[in-house]
Amino acid sequence: MKEAGEETGLATICEVVSLDAINTAVKYVDMLQIGARNMQNFFLLKEAGKAGLPVVLKRGLAATIDEWLNAAEYIISEGNPHVILCERGIRTFETSTRNTLDLSAIPVLRSKTHFPIIVDPSHATGVRDYVPPLAKAGIAAGADGLMIEVHNDPENAMSDGPQSLTFQQFEELTKDLAPYSSLAGRSFGI
Amino acid sequence: MKEAGEETGLATICEVVSLDAINTAVKYVDMLQIGARNMQNFFLLKEAGKAGLPVVLKRGLAATIDEWLNAAEYIISEGNPHVILCERGIRTFETSTRNTLDLSAIPVLRSKTHFPIIVDPSHATGVRDYVPPLAKAGIAAGADGLMIEVHNDPENAMSDGPQSLTFQQFEELTKDLAPYSSLAGRSFGI
Amino acid sequence: MKEAGEETGLATICEVVSLDAINTAVKYVDMLQIGARNMQNFFLLKEAGKAGLPVVLKRGLAATIDEWLNAAEYIISEGNPHVILCERGIRTFETSTRNTLDLSAIPVLRSKTHFPIIVDPSHATGVRDYVPPLAKAGIAAGADGLMIEVHNDPENAMSDGPQSLTFQQFEELTKDLAPYSSLAGRSFGI
Amino acid sequence: MKEAGEETGLATICEVVSLDAINTAVKYVDMLQIGARNMQNFFLLKEAGKAGLPVVLKRGLAATIDEWLNAAEYIISEGNPHVILCERGIRTFETSTRNTLDLSAIPVLRSKTHFPIIVDPSHATGVRDYVPPLAKAGIAAGADGLMIEVHNDPENAMSDGPQSLTFQQFEELTKDLAPYSSLAGRSFGI
Repeated sequence: MKEAGEETGLATICEVVSLDAINTAVKYVDMLQIGARNMQNFFLLKEAGKAGLPVVLKRGLAATIDEWLNAAEYIISEGNPHVILCERGIRTFETSTRNTLDLSAIPVLRSKTHFPIIVDPSHATGVRDYVPPLAKAGIAAGADGLMIEVHNDPENAMSDGPQSLTFQQFEELTKDLAPYSSLAGRSFGI
Repeated sequence: MKEAGEETGLATICEVVSLDAINTAVKYVDMLQIGARNMQNFFLLKEAGKAGLPVVLKRGLAATIDEWLNAAEYIISEGNPHVILCERGIRTFETSTRNTLDLSAIPVLRSKTHFPIIVDPSHATGVRDYVPPLAKAGIAAGADGLMIEVHNDPENAMSDGPQSLTFQQFEELTKDLAPYSSLAGRSFGI
Repeated sequence: MKEAGEETGLATICEVVSLDAINTAVKYVDMLQIGARNMQNFFLLKEAGKAGLPVVLKRGLAATIDEWLNAAEYIISEGNPHVILCERGIRTFETSTRNTLDLSAIPVLRSKTHFPIIVDPSHATGVRDYVPPLAKAGIAAGADGLMIEVHNDPENAMSDGPQSLTFQQFEELTKDLAPYSSLAGRSFGI
Repeated sequence: MKEAGEETGLATICEVVSLDAINTAVKYVDMLQIGARNMQNFFLLKEAGKAGLPVVLKRGLAATIDEWLNAAEYIISEGNPHVILCERGIRTFETSTRNTLDLSAIPVLRSKTHFPIIVDPSHATGVRDYVPPLAKAGIAAGADGLMIEVHNDPENAMSDGPQSLTFQQFEELTKDLAPYSSLAGRSFGI
């Protein structure tokens, strides 16, 4: 179990939507993810907290920062302090991006919590070309990490193709991001 | 007239809200500004276009990117091509910042227009401590410039004190911003 | 089981948040409710569909009408056609009410679906005094029913007291609503 | 001047966007209108206040109720107490209607001001078929009046055709609205 991760040093993650999914996921992955649509599924949050693995908690589409932190409390109330907050865009009137990435949330969260904060520019914008500038902006704003969608063949992806980087684009982006990480006093790795 | 600007190399700017204000401002300043609340004041946009000076056009609180570009057309239709777009936050449900700074607008605008784009993190957030990280993020996302509120005595400012940097904070920020400008292939100056 | 309902002619309803809750609720109540925060909990929607009871599906705080109808599909795909849509306010920038009741959703839904539509002015506004005018407006806009919070002692309610009507206020409201129902060609009962 | 109005008993109204427009309008019409896009054009508000005619002040697309009342203060500060507030929809994420009609604003305003309140379901929805149910809802929610777009030939209207009622549809609507006015303790007339 979890051999791939042990061999490569990479962590694996799985989005869970039910107790059954959690029970299966814990056998194979290193981290659980609660998606935006389940951010206020308090039953699921508590079960994820009981599972013991670190939990990436995505911000709900219409969740205030306070509601997001409150949702995290449901996880940690089960004795699991390993919550990672993921900003992935909020719903606004603007339609040129799928959601509106709220990078202001990073300094706001910094003033309220010690949880690590990561940014998902892929789901926030839904557009491949917008991912690199917003990935840089996320690091510049103080994020601890990024979640970026990559696909070996985005044109034929079953979902989220238009927002996915190719492997080559991803490799270029990681080179471009390294100096931004350095400016933020961080090392950088995939 | 305009001697200060000529001597120091600094440009001066004035927000205008009426034809009278435009007629006065053109005698003294280098640039005009149309505020967010007047972004769809089409009468004012046209008069600003006629005035001939470069115009900073702030995004309306509930303006889509397309409406913003459409407002710019009112200025350039009067023969004035010198429009600078200023992202200063949009209105959303989130209340921990005054507005929600929409940095995704930068790459979206890049794909649609050649107008320079600047970012105002001071009015967007309303909170001094949030200005530096979002100023960096703005440059990282590709902005051509920043508009940052500075006051010699923010505690006693008549307006916008809580979002204003002191001179010292501003000087520190400019030092911190320089390498971000370099990464974007830009030189940096005030 | 369900004797109270059988005796009085009143239907009972229970909000469910997990499969366990559904399995318990079906023994005692006439209808299930999926709350706004679980509108896109697709696992729960399918389980509610399998349960066979009519399901009140509340609109998510940031759900478009199309997403709401799509969520209903998860219920009916399990062979349960008895879905009742409940408009309970969407999240906007306005803070004088808890949410913004979207009564336009009623004619929009009428043009897209045959599901019954009810309106919850209590959760939408969060303020007792705003409930009667918006209850009338809901019926006038074409709603098939209302969901109104009532409490025997709102001042000491454990939750939602400020939005709850007293029994007397509720009785007065029902008298006031009857002629609006008549205008809409409906009979009226509790 | 203003003879049509004097003869028929109908009031005429003109939307104004500049001081010149105000100076011309006051010669011919009974009321001025400040449009949603100019709700925070404080220069225009003050000039409208000086003109002396009653002013219909439409709510801005992203204006809170408090900002709306504050804008009205600019008019009355010039000695003109005759302000009529017009709810015409706010900007939200929902795209099935042009804006989201906020009928909750009516009871909120009732608790804060004595200004008359009217509702514009035509501009709020942008769809002809949605106008009658929301006109009824507006009256039921307590509005003092309605502003409804009518056109003798909507299919060939230069603007806003899809939201305009024909004369016949308007006549039918007025008949349907009369009993709602009666329930609200009002007489009804065009």
